[in-house]
Amino acid sequence: MTIKNRLEELGLVLPPPPEPAAHYRPWVRDGDIIYLAGQTPKKGTELQYIGQVGAELDLNAGRAAAGLCALRLLSALQEAVGDLNKVTQISKLTVFVNAAQGFADHPKVANGASDLISAVMGDVGLHARSAVGVSSLPGNAAVEVEMIARCQ
Amino acid sequence: MTIKNRLEELGLVLPPPPEPAAHYRPWVRDGDIIYLAGQTPKKGTELQYIGQVGAELDLNAGRAAAGLCALRLLSALQEAVGDLNKVTQISKLTVFVNAAQGFADHPKVANGASDLISAVMGDVGLHARSAVGVSSLPGNAAVEVEMIARCQ
Amino acid sequence: MTIKNRLEELGLVLPPPPEPAAHYRPWVRDGDIIYLAGQTPKKGTELQYIGQVGAELDLNAGRAAAGLCALRLLSALQEAVGDLNKVTQISKLTVFVNAAQGFADHPKVANGASDLISAVMGDVGLHARSAVGVSSLPGNAAVEVEMIARCQ
Repeated sequence: MTIKNRLEELGLVLPPPPEPAAHYRPWVRDGDIIYLAGQTPKKGTELQYIGQVGAELDLNAGRAAAGLCALRLLSALQEAVGDLNKVTQISKLTVFVNAAQGFADHPKVANGASDLISAVMGDVGLHARSAVGVSSLPGNAAVEVEMIARCQ
Repeated sequence: MTIKNRLEELGLVLPPPPEPAAHYRPWVRDGDIIYLAGQTPKKGTELQYIGQVGAELDLNAGRAAAGLCALRLLSALQEAVGDLNKVTQISKLTVFVNAAQGFADHPKVANGASDLISAVMGDVGLHARSAVGVSSLPGNAAVEVEMIARCQ
Repeated sequence: MTIKNRLEELGLVLPPPPEPAAHYRPWVRDGDIIYLAGQTPKKGTELQYIGQVGAELDLNAGRAAAGLCALRLLSALQEAVGDLNKVTQISKLTVFVNAAQGFADHPKVANGASDLISAVMGDVGLHARSAVGVSSLPGNAAVEVEMIARCQ
C-alpha cells in the first residue's frame, strides 16, 4: 500500500508545504539525510493550539497539536523527497511541549505525533524520540516538533 | 582494553536495554548513524531522580541522574550495534536539565553523563554537547539525555 | 567571493575557537557531518548577554546574543574543517532562548543567528531551524545555539 493510499484511508490530507519565514528553510537535504525545521500546529499561517498544555490546554488538545505538527512535517518531507514512498526511515523526532512546571505527561502529548507518523509511514515511521517541556514557544504554540529522516 | 573490561573496572553494569513505550523506538540505526531516544534516570521502569535540580534536588543528585541516563543510553547503543567496541564515535549529547528559572550550572549536571561516557568509551566517547534547562520533563524526571553515535 | 572576503565586508571577525571545558568537545567530525556543541554568547570566556529575553533583555539584545553564538559556531566550524569554503551545507540550527513563560518571539531572536550565517555563508548557509524557549541556560546566558553542518 502506498503512502497516498494510507493517507486517504486515514482521512488525512497533507497541507501545503510550510514556507520559510526568514533566512532558513523548512527542510535541508544533506545527502540522504533530511533535516526538517521545527513545526508548530498551524493550519495555513494560523496557529490552532495556543497556550500551555496542562494549563490552558488539556492532554487531548496537546496530543492533537502534536499530530498537526507531524502532518506539516510530512508535508515538508514530501516536498524534500518528491514522494513519501522514497523515505526509508523516520530517524528522530524531538517534541517540545509548552508546559507548566511540574507537567509530566510529555510522552502522551508526543504520541500524537508518533502515532500519526507510524500510521502513515508504517514500520519506516518508527523513530527515536525525545519529548521535553519548554517554558515558551513561538507564537505561544502548544507544541513544536522537529524531525530527521533518511531517504533513498 | 575492551569496553567490557572498562565497565568492570569502573564497577558499572549496563542495565537491560530500554523498552519502547509507544510508536517509537529506543534507537534507530540509519546507515552508520545511530539516533538514540532521550533517556530519563530510571532503574528498570522506576525513575530514580524526580524533581527540579536546584530546587528539590542538589547538583550532586543532578550529576548522578545524568550519569544514570548515560548508562541507559550505552545499553541502548550496545543493543543497536551488538558490541560497544564497534562504536567509532559518540557524536552528540543533548542534556535537558529540569531546572528552576535562574539555574546556571547545567554544564556540571551534564558532566555526569559526559564523564561516564568518556570513562567507558575513551577518546571515542568525546562528543559535542548542548546542555539546556527545561521547565518540565516526563514523569518529572530531573534530567533527560539523548545521543547520536556512529559505528562501523 | 570567499568566506574570508564576506567576513571582512561584513566587518566580522571570527573569535578564537571555543575551548572544551570538560569531557566533551566543541565539535565532532563524523565523516562529512560536523556536530557542533551549543554555544552561548561569549567574548573569550565572558558571557555578554545574561538574563531572560523578554524580561531583563529586550528583543534586540536577544537577536544580538544569537548572532554572537553564531559567530562562535562559525569559528568552531572553521577549526573543524580548516577552511569555511569547504562547508557545503549548514544543515540545522537549534536556538534555545532563555525566555519568560508566554514569550512568543523566538523566531525573531533566532534570526540573529540565521541572518549572520546566511550573510557569511551565502546559500550554503540556509539551514533547517528550530527555536524554542527554555527556562534556564548555562551561566544564565540569554541564548544557546547548536549547529549541524556538512563539509566536503
